[in-house]
Formats: sequence, structure tokens, C-alpha cells
Amino acid sequence: MAQVEIDRNGLEVLDRDECLRLLGQATLGRVGVTIGALPSVVPVNYRVVGDEVVILTGAGTKLDAATKNAVVAFEVDDMDPIEHTGWSVMVTGMAREVVDEAEIAELTRRPLPHWAPGGRERIIAISTEIASGRRIAHRTSATSER
Amino acid sequence: MAQVEIDRNGLEVLDRDECLRLLGQATLGRVGVTIGALPSVVPVNYRVVGDEVVILTGAGTKLDAATKNAVVAFEVDDMDPIEHTGWSVMVTGMAREVVDEAEIAELTRRPLPHWAPGGRERIIAISTEIASGRRIAHRTSATSER
Repeated sequence: MAQVEIDRNGLEVLDRDECLRLLGQATLGRVGVTIGALPSVVPVNYRVVGDEVVILTGAGTKLDAATKNAVVAFEVDDMDPIEHTGWSVMVTGMAREVVDEAEIAELTRRPLPHWAPGGRERIIAISTEIASGRRIAHRTSATSER
Repeated sequence: MAQVEIDRNGLEVLDRDECLRLLGQATLGRVGVTIGALPSVVPVNYRVVGDEVVILTGAGTKLDAATKNAVVAFEVDDMDPIEHTGWSVMVTGMAREVVDEAEIAELTRRPLPHWAPGGRERIIAISTEIASGRRIAHRTSATSER
């Protein structure tokens, strides 16, 4: 039974395995990018494939331009405002456009979810090399349930 | 009855009034900031007071440092993955720490929501001067319901 690490805000620190497990459970996240020197946050549907987060962007959009060979943040959370429980995971990594035909075929065997209804799309893969996460710790129990 | 503007991705473009109305309905958003030259996205509870988004940060945290007199992004969305409907609003604005005692007293008359359980807190106000938003347009109806 592992010791639970608590950060200075009283939140449980999640290890990499737990971050990736939680990432794999959700389908909606937010990409943080720099557009015109300003921070920007855009909601996107996604899927984890291997050790990358895969999203679709509309060709020629600002998000598309901002996710080409740039370091981006990708954040997913699940909060319950009534129970006051929840978790948040963020990865920081290089985003690359998937251009290899075989890789595109492999990634699109199952349809990739997309929030926006139309437009020509590009597939962007974000490295999950740097992952961090927090969970609201149950204050009545400081021991791990894992 | 206003004409609905549709963007290149097929999403309805929301005007400023609608963006601020939607911002006022939710309590959980995500702050996009630059930390150590890298983009970062952090979930926060918030409240709209006047024309500013008001959040709490833990004193001395990275988020606290990144929201001091910096331009930040603040994004709120509400998506229904089953019905495939939803909206997203983002404001981009200067963040300032609220230090005036009278203003702090005014802002804390109603408790400000806070996701993290503990720690000394600072009040940060984010300008909503630049607001933009999108909604998944009902493709069967191109006229406004407002």
C-alpha cells in the first residue's frame, strides 16, 4: 500500500500511472496553447492511443496552427461540486500533426470523436511524457486505497 | 430576431452578452496561463462579480505567481456528449490580485467557491474585456431563438 503524497494545497498528488489511467477514462479535455503570444484554452474531444493524446483540429484554424510542433498543455478533470470530490490531470508535451498514411489509417479505424460538426480535419498527437495530477483527498483517511 | 453567425467549423458564434450570460451560469472553469514559458491549464471554481471573473489561488502556488498582473485565458464550457450539444466561452484578460480591504470585504460577503481544501488564499480578478464563445448550432434551424 503506497503512501499518499499530499501537496501544499491539501490535494493528493497522483503518480504517472494513475494520471494515464484517468486520462484514458474521459473523452473531453482542454488544450492550452499560445496563440499570438496570449494563452488560450480550447475544449476538444480526444482519445488516448499508446502514450499520446490524439485530437482532431479543423484545418486552418487557430488551434490547428497553434498545435503544430509546439509544446501544449492538455488538461482533463472530473469534479463533483455537490460531493466536493474530483481530480485533474494535465500533460505537457510536444504536439505533432500525424501525416503518415498508415498511422492515420490505424488511428481512424475507430472514429475519433470531434466536438465541432464540420470542416476538413487534421489529426494531432500530443506526447504525455510529462504528466501531473491532483485529487481532492478524503480528509478523514490519509491512507491509499490503491 | 438576430441573424446567427456560423464560423468555419460550423459552430454558432456567440456575442458578448451571451458569453457573459453563460459565464454567469457556471461555477467551474479553467485558467490558461504561461508557467516557465510553457502553457498550463488549471481548473478553478469562480464567480462573476461585475465585469470580472473572480477566483481564489493558494498563496505561493505556481498558479498564484502566474496570475499576478499577467494576461490569462479563462474558459468555461458545458458539453453534452450524448446529445452532442454544448457551448464554450473564453475570456482573455489581465489578471490582478485584489488587495484593497474594502473590495476584499465586498467580494467575500458571499463565500467564494474553492476546489482545493486548504491553504492561505489570494483573490484574483480577471477582466472579461475580450470574450468569445461558440455553441454547436442546431443544423435543422439556422435562425436565432433569442
